[in-house]
Amino acid sequence: MDRILTAEELGEKIKEISIAEFFEKNRHLLGYENPTKSLLTVVKESVDNSLDACLESRILPTIKVLVKQLTENKFRVKVEDNGPGLPPEKIPIAFGKFLVGSKFSALKQLIGTQGIGVKGAILYAQLTTGNPAKIITYYKGKKHEFVMGIDILKNEPNVISHKVEKSDKKAHGLSVDLIVEGRYVKGLQSIPTYLRYISIANPYAKIIFDSPNGKIVFERATNKLPPIPKEIKPHPYGVELGKLKRMLKLTKYKTLVSFLKNEFSRVSMQKAKQICKLAKIAQTRNPKELTHKEVEKLHKVMQMVKLKAPPTNCLSPLNKEMLISGLKREFPEGEFFDAIIRKPSVYRGNPFQVQAAIVYGENLNLNGALVLRFANHTPLLYNQGECAITKAVQGINWRNYGLSQSEGSLPNSPVVILVDFLSVWIPYTSEGKQAIAQYPEIIKEIKLALQELGRRLGSYIRKKKRIRERQLRKQLFERYIPEVAKSLAKLTEKDEKQILNKLESFVKKNEVRENELSSKNDKKA
Amino acid sequence: MDRILTAEELGEKIKEISIAEFFEKNRHLLGYENPTKSLLTVVKESVDNSLDACLESRILPTIKVLVKQLTENKFRVKVEDNGPGLPPEKIPIAFGKFLVGSKFSALKQLIGTQGIGVKGAILYAQLTTGNPAKIITYYKGKKHEFVMGIDILKNEPNVISHKVEKSDKKAHGLSVDLIVEGRYVKGLQSIPTYLRYISIANPYAKIIFDSPNGKIVFERATNKLPPIPKEIKPHPYGVELGKLKRMLKLTKYKTLVSFLKNEFSRVSMQKAKQICKLAKIAQTRNPKELTHKEVEKLHKVMQMVKLKAPPTNCLSPLNKEMLISGLKREFPEGEFFDAIIRKPSVYRGNPFQVQAAIVYGENLNLNGALVLRFANHTPLLYNQGECAITKAVQGINWRNYGLSQSEGSLPNSPVVILVDFLSVWIPYTSEGKQAIAQYPEIIKEIKLALQELGRRLGSYIRKKKRIRERQLRKQLFERYIPEVAKSLAKLTEKDEKQILNKLESFVKKNEVRENELSSKNDKKA
Repeated sequence: MDRILTAEELGEKIKEISIAEFFEKNRHLLGYENPTKSLLTVVKESVDNSLDACLESRILPTIKVLVKQLTENKFRVKVEDNGPGLPPEKIPIAFGKFLVGSKFSALKQLIGTQGIGVKGAILYAQLTTGNPAKIITYYKGKKHEFVMGIDILKNEPNVISHKVEKSDKKAHGLSVDLIVEGRYVKGLQSIPTYLRYISIANPYAKIIFDSPNGKIVFERATNKLPPIPKEIKPHPYGVELGKLKRMLKLTKYKTLVSFLKNEFSRVSMQKAKQICKLAKIAQTRNPKELTHKEVEKLHKVMQMVKLKAPPTNCLSPLNKEMLISGLKREFPEGEFFDAIIRKPSVYRGNPFQVQAAIVYGENLNLNGALVLRFANHTPLLYNQGECAITKAVQGINWRNYGLSQSEGSLPNSPVVILVDFLSVWIPYTSEGKQAIAQYPEIIKEIKLALQELGRRLGSYIRKKKRIRERQLRKQLFERYIPEVAKSLAKLTEKDEKQILNKLESFVKKNEVRENELSSKNDKKA
Repeated sequence: MDRILTAEELGEKIKEISIAEFFEKNRHLLGYENPTKSLLTVVKESVDNSLDACLESRILPTIKVLVKQLTENKFRVKVEDNGPGLPPEKIPIAFGKFLVGSKFSALKQLIGTQGIGVKGAILYAQLTTGNPAKIITYYKGKKHEFVMGIDILKNEPNVISHKVEKSDKKAHGLSVDLIVEGRYVKGLQSIPTYLRYISIANPYAKIIFDSPNGKIVFERATNKLPPIPKEIKPHPYGVELGKLKRMLKLTKYKTLVSFLKNEFSRVSMQKAKQICKLAKIAQTRNPKELTHKEVEKLHKVMQMVKLKAPPTNCLSPLNKEMLISGLKREFPEGEFFDAIIRKPSVYRGNPFQVQAAIVYGENLNLNGALVLRFANHTPLLYNQGECAITKAVQGINWRNYGLSQSEGSLPNSPVVILVDFLSVWIPYTSEGKQAIAQYPEIIKEIKLALQELGRRLGSYIRKKKRIRERQLRKQLFERYIPEVAKSLAKLTEKDEKQILNKLESFVKKNEVRENELSSKNDKKA
């Protein structure tokens, strides 16, 4: 091994490795770089899956999370949902084989996408404690319990046992039960914080957390589910040349014009004909037989022709009330709550939408602003510095809205700023899925949302300040009224009590007038 | 698709996707998120491979890089080396299948490790311009030319043609030729900068760059190759439980004691016996038959027993002169050059080593410090902010060493700070491989290296300041000598010329004495 290598020897060493082996060695890429973050990631991956499954089946999610300390650095993590479960024959590959998933090519808003998530957690359990996973699903009146792991060298499920029992006919749901190495902490990057944030952005979910320090229940703040996201076809503006080539090869349509009309969104028959004409390719040509030059021409024309923006019913925003209801429950000390759901917009051909909310309150127990970042309703707890959301918050002059702030920083006032970025494809800065890449179109949309909320907050803060000043003036005046009345009585030789009453009624009248004025001003602002 | 999904329907949607498809969709994870960075990544992946191949075969690398602009955003990139090449039958899988590579499990210092790099570039070419790659290798007197791409849906090579011609018997080497979308820029995050830095940290390499703006040649600064890194076995301290379980299952050794002695580094027969004894498992037990409980016990004991640190001949540092020679060539305006190669150290069971260098010069054309970050001799150009190297530079008080600096920032003086982090396993913060994770042990070692260099630079800067002050004094005095001599001549009625000579010789003597004094001081410092 230590000698100089020849071409043959270099060739000899070339081997295929499995994706499971790759992730085992590079587990930090999946969020398993230290015991604290790893324990959080294990919980997160299972909860994300549970939420997606419930939402796809229109079930109000009830998710039970157990984190139990077994030894100093060994924990049992069990996540149990009331989703539809999975047919038992699908369990082994869904949990024991990387790059197997239901969501990879779906162009619709989901939390999971990669076919990696929960398998990473099972791999991590197996690697650090040597324990297999226990997966339970309820299916057609039976309870199926799998004890299984992953054959790392083959990237194949390794099923150790499969037990079947009778169960209630109506039982449904799935649970994942793991033993992992970890460290349990409190604070901003912890499991309780993650679950708390999940329940804010998913107020229709009930989460019961059985923590090492006792039970915490995050109640449902609403019984309404958000709209169901629809799957869309790719938009011509977003498609890359190589992808187009493959689509042409694999299509079932026999003519170019029907290929264009049926495989893309926003391409009508008329538009399809226009594209063919501009590309100088006959409409009736077999898509499979286009030359490289023709595909190049077609691709160019597809980027140029005028088309409607992609449809946005692939997204599933909350409504304003749902967003606020979650925040009110979590920040009862807040005085001011507001939220905004922006209209959908587009970057690189992908539809996206920003929803944002703000909570302000002098009694909020905060040192400066707390920024809650979300992507498709799931909280981002790490890598705040490199995230488009942070960039947008820092880029706003919050002093305009009555908050204190050093330029380019987060505001210093007691305020909660929530941003939830929704898209069919979240451009995460890494697979750890903890920050959104800084595309200018994305930052701009987030800023517009926050500036609108800032203006509304600003007018609240100004009004509050005016009321406070007035009250101070009034208190001051009231304190002196008896003195003044006494003096005036002496001077005018009139009844002291009468004077006192007059002065008091004057103060009251003035108050009413000021209130009227200030509400007029607010309307102007 | 838009209806509510049942468990069956959810199950139906579960599909396997290929790793190639995964990376096609997530190409930003490999460094292909925008045209500028993508063009750099294409060059980088090929050059990294060429360097590794040459070093493994002990060939002084000569690498030709061509970047040719074809249209506004289309470039041809060709990288050609004088390495050993590859046997032609290995070309398809080495370039057309992800997760195939020669370096994945080797515990030695190499640039590539993942079996992903250059395939990412081929995928990117295919996706953005639809063009296949052209790979040429010289092998046993024949020239083999492959035109090929990747079958994305299968993650299999897609060979379009394979031509064989006669060639010079002694010809060797390999070239990769691609057509990709990109943007060519200058500046700190550009291809010329990347190649310049490569040539600094690999001064034994000659790089000929045929750029869109003309030819640039980075000459070899030395003909000496660094020591050949040796492959080591895993150290007991670094091994995880799941990995240990697998090693026990797969070993060819028949007894536990021989397994321990032969599959790990730093485990002597005596230590192996000690481990068995402490774990209360018979030495002669068949490794394949250990129970889970026994493996747990064994793993615990392996972490506790006292063992030598891992061997470090798996690393391949430069020597001080090699490092400085590259910097002298690139920064001819520098006045002060110094370098340090630290002793190897260990983090998470992985050996690592820091080499660092510093260049100072008032005529260096720099606005403040320029930090050159390297990992295993390869430059890191992105994500400077999150890198352990940046953290270490910022954590040093450079004012102690005569430089200007605001606290917690990079120094403001004209100085080049180079840090090269060598390890069998670089903990990159993401697959983009652009920043080193901030492990405390790593930051500490880098700081120690830089503080030593800082002290040496500080004494140079102090000395330079003294010399300058002295010269100013001398100049001032010399200007007055004729005047003084004239006045003294008048006063003493002696010969003016004689007095002048005496005064001048006095100045000279004083200068010699000062020099002696200052060099003594330097030695003390």
